[in-house]
Amino acid sequence: MGSLPGHLVPGTIFILLGLWWIYSVWLRYFICRQRRRPFYVTSSFPFHCCSPRVARLPIESFFIIFGTSLGILIELIAGFNRGYDPETHQTIFFEGANNLQHFAMYFMFFLVGIIEVLLHYNFPLPKYFDAVAGCLAFTAEALLFYFHGHSRDPVEVQIHIFLVLSIASTVVCAVFEIVQQDKQVYASLMRAYCTVLQGSWFYTTGFFLYSPFHAHYEQSKDPDAHRTLMLIAYYFALHMAIILLLVLIFTIPAYMVSKRQQQTIEFTEYGHFSMVNNDDEEMEKLNGTAVNIQ
Amino acid sequence: MGSLPGHLVPGTIFILLGLWWIYSVWLRYFICRQRRRPFYVTSSFPFHCCSPRVARLPIESFFIIFGTSLGILIELIAGFNRGYDPETHQTIFFEGANNLQHFAMYFMFFLVGIIEVLLHYNFPLPKYFDAVAGCLAFTAEALLFYFHGHSRDPVEVQIHIFLVLSIASTVVCAVFEIVQQDKQVYASLMRAYCTVLQGSWFYTTGFFLYSPFHAHYEQSKDPDAHRTLMLIAYYFALHMAIILLLVLIFTIPAYMVSKRQQQTIEFTEYGHFSMVNNDDEEMEKLNGTAVNIQ
Amino acid sequence: MGSLPGHLVPGTIFILLGLWWIYSVWLRYFICRQRRRPFYVTSSFPFHCCSPRVARLPIESFFIIFGTSLGILIELIAGFNRGYDPETHQTIFFEGANNLQHFAMYFMFFLVGIIEVLLHYNFPLPKYFDAVAGCLAFTAEALLFYFHGHSRDPVEVQIHIFLVLSIASTVVCAVFEIVQQDKQVYASLMRAYCTVLQGSWFYTTGFFLYSPFHAHYEQSKDPDAHRTLMLIAYYFALHMAIILLLVLIFTIPAYMVSKRQQQTIEFTEYGHFSMVNNDDEEMEKLNGTAVNIQ
Amino acid sequence: MGSLPGHLVPGTIFILLGLWWIYSVWLRYFICRQRRRPFYVTSSFPFHCCSPRVARLPIESFFIIFGTSLGILIELIAGFNRGYDPETHQTIFFEGANNLQHFAMYFMFFLVGIIEVLLHYNFPLPKYFDAVAGCLAFTAEALLFYFHGHSRDPVEVQIHIFLVLSIASTVVCAVFEIVQQDKQVYASLMRAYCTVLQGSWFYTTGFFLYSPFHAHYEQSKDPDAHRTLMLIAYYFALHMAIILLLVLIFTIPAYMVSKRQQQTIEFTEYGHFSMVNNDDEEMEKLNGTAVNIQ
Repeated sequence: MGSLPGHLVPGTIFILLGLWWIYSVWLRYFICRQRRRPFYVTSSFPFHCCSPRVARLPIESFFIIFGTSLGILIELIAGFNRGYDPETHQTIFFEGANNLQHFAMYFMFFLVGIIEVLLHYNFPLPKYFDAVAGCLAFTAEALLFYFHGHSRDPVEVQIHIFLVLSIASTVVCAVFEIVQQDKQVYASLMRAYCTVLQGSWFYTTGFFLYSPFHAHYEQSKDPDAHRTLMLIAYYFALHMAIILLLVLIFTIPAYMVSKRQQQTIEFTEYGHFSMVNNDDEEMEKLNGTAVNIQ
Repeated sequence: MGSLPGHLVPGTIFILLGLWWIYSVWLRYFICRQRRRPFYVTSSFPFHCCSPRVARLPIESFFIIFGTSLGILIELIAGFNRGYDPETHQTIFFEGANNLQHFAMYFMFFLVGIIEVLLHYNFPLPKYFDAVAGCLAFTAEALLFYFHGHSRDPVEVQIHIFLVLSIASTVVCAVFEIVQQDKQVYASLMRAYCTVLQGSWFYTTGFFLYSPFHAHYEQSKDPDAHRTLMLIAYYFALHMAIILLLVLIFTIPAYMVSKRQQQTIEFTEYGHFSMVNNDDEEMEKLNGTAVNIQ
Repeated sequence: MGSLPGHLVPGTIFILLGLWWIYSVWLRYFICRQRRRPFYVTSSFPFHCCSPRVARLPIESFFIIFGTSLGILIELIAGFNRGYDPETHQTIFFEGANNLQHFAMYFMFFLVGIIEVLLHYNFPLPKYFDAVAGCLAFTAEALLFYFHGHSRDPVEVQIHIFLVLSIASTVVCAVFEIVQQDKQVYASLMRAYCTVLQGSWFYTTGFFLYSPFHAHYEQSKDPDAHRTLMLIAYYFALHMAIILLLVLIFTIPAYMVSKRQQQTIEFTEYGHFSMVNNDDEEMEKLNGTAVNIQ
Repeated sequence: MGSLPGHLVPGTIFILLGLWWIYSVWLRYFICRQRRRPFYVTSSFPFHCCSPRVARLPIESFFIIFGTSLGILIELIAGFNRGYDPETHQTIFFEGANNLQHFAMYFMFFLVGIIEVLLHYNFPLPKYFDAVAGCLAFTAEALLFYFHGHSRDPVEVQIHIFLVLSIASTVVCAVFEIVQQDKQVYASLMRAYCTVLQGSWFYTTGFFLYSPFHAHYEQSKDPDAHRTLMLIAYYFALHMAIILLLVLIFTIPAYMVSKRQQQTIEFTEYGHFSMVNNDDEEMEKLNGTAVNIQ
């Protein structure tokens, strides 16, 4: 990271993933509501738009594994430094602390992707183990970003605090998703909401710190640091409002698709690997995670 | 805000709304208790006093939408500044950071009002989606007020911390309202309690910072800042005690009304749009939010 | 407070109340276990030792009301100051900030006592309303003590932080008591544990700040503030360990009494006003708070 | 502690205990899954590998009691100081604050071991009382370590903060284990995960502060404290990732053993003292802690 594109790339990934989750959660909610079935919770959602064969593939997980692998490679190469030690007359190699932090972050999400694929191909893991691993990955991300902005100037610290808040809310929502007894739509929706919020806040951070359009906030003419701090809180609240509006707007296409495809989407097909068919019910009972759905 | 009336207006709104909720929660509790039905949870309450037709209107939501629209207009107009840039010889326009913060706050609650109206007219949203949006709006308000008092003097910071505490408690109560399995009266009552507390604390803030009756606390003769800080905590505890007393006192009219109108209030009419009639039961099952009420 | 006895008196009250709760919780646990009934939760416990008539009286609540009334009187009289304003040549009257804080604290607990008595005499309030009021009272106490030690020296601040921690844990346990679906013994036991911890910490605070036996810690020969801070944490952990040991030891008399009085204690009599007899079951259903105990 | 071995010894104990829990939780999960029984929760796990007689012994509890007794002895002897007071010409005896803190910590875990043994031999305590006592012990440990690093340099403070975070997560997971209604595998797994994390972080702390291989971090050539702080956060995230990988890898031996011993392990034997046989069911009903397992 450390540059504008370094903030826009993860921001874009989180925004796309979050919007996809918002749409998918609404779609599943409307489908379950029309067919009078209870809502159910999964970490990732199938791409039902193309064909049943595609919907059965864990595309989201492959996307995460591919993206994080790329990220790990870039950070390790970019962060590699060759130094020269004047005392011992030896060349020393070290990684930048920034890049090592990003590497650790990508590595956690890489593991989450692996676990999702394992779960998808019926490796005998507990049902929501990918959500648990996701919580751990987001927690590690929050800790890294919290100590990212340590001992810097107050504006940078505050921007990172809001980032940490949105990541921590994602963790809280995911924990709620797992522990709630009657699965409801709210926790999943809020998990998606917080992910979009985090992504759009990455954008704000990038433009605040490395904007190409106007001077760096330190060189700007604003003489009052307090005004800047208040504006950051205002931007965050504005992001919250606009994403809430987006969540409302996304009900429309999801409702449309759920109505139009009432005949074409096979329910068992849509919810292929996580829906309640006979096999799963059996597995759930074994796991002791059986949701009371009768 | 930034003036005495600017604090009294939102304070009055929150106090009125909170007292109305306390009365309505008690009334619903007594009605449910007398008719041996379980308590149920809604974000807003019908005005049963006038006529069945009025009780069916979402007056509370209209009130919120009207109030926040007015607030948005006032803040945008009041906060509009025309400046003159001596270097480029151009007039520049900007909004005050304070006013932008208040605008963001009003906008969140405006969205909550819209969602309540949508839910009332059977737009296919999940049952407690207005409560979730309300939590987001209160969270945004808490964040804005928390960074309102940043880098100011300790008395102002502490007053805002208590405000943030009362708002955060409201959010916690509303989350409890949604996640509790057997709906009980406590979370709704505490939500109302915290809202009144927040409103009455707005009053205290206004009189502390901009009182017309005595000098500004900075110019007052009290030489000891520590005494002032302790007094603020004392005032907050006193507010908590008095509002608890109010909650107790409000049982009396609610109990009276529930007894007197035992014949006149139709149960299905009172709880018109959220009570468990056949349609709702069906909808609840579809949403997977069915409370076990048999 | 502000003196050694001022800390020992509330400390003694909290320790006695907490030990009484520990004993009563164990006794109820063993009685329920022997008669194969589920554990149930109440804020206060009956004095079964004397006679059925005494057991039916809300002695604990009367004790709280009496104690807090006394405390309010003392604080208002002791805190009354008569000053002389040299400018206006008038005598002014004011209360000490310290005393006002204590007054607010006592007043909250006074209200809790009133609510307990109302509940006991079947005033139509929800079943656990006294626990909710108790949570509010402890929250107010924690806030007051948190801002008690503001801007003082680090040792005093840290002592108050531990006090606030033990009070906050009491609130968390009481909230757990209300929200748990199948009532278990743990939350009630921990509520009692935290109350004793709070009381014994009052003792430590008193002896640390106003000990008659050795010099004030500021005048003591210990030159290292860090050592003192570490010792305070050590004392707190030691208190935790010793009270855990006490909880274990209290199982013995409770078990004895439950065995010996298996014949003499009527179950319905012991749990007179809160046990599951027919009337209560009916009331519970009405309140929507019916615990599934079949 | 206060030295490299003083950190490696508790670190090793926590790592071994945590790895043993991870393996045992997976084994129990697979056994329950294969025999279509719900997962159940215990604080300690039997050593099934040797013989049924050994599996019935509370070896884990004896291990804890033995280890903490040893620790208490060492700390009291090592911390014993003989001083000479120049004013009064008397020899004075005192314990080091560090050693007293460690003594308090060991004493809490000693009590947990005692309670586990009592529970194992059917002393009439509630079922999860050892988990509650464990929560208290970990809380005391977290408080002690939090005030360990007070008023020292920022690197040492941050290392201790991460230690406190991992201990606090253990407490949260253990509370979840107790309060969850349908027992699931996630909380137990995360409790084990956090314990290993804590142990491996003890190692990191030891090598950071007292490494024999390279200079103390204060004397090292790294001129930038911010880089060191970021590296600490990076190490913590790396630990989180590697232990998550370990959790995944441990599924393999546990799955093997569960498959191979499907015939040899008697289910009732494995879960000897906590499984659902007739006696326990009865006891559970008495305790009001009966998990709905039908």
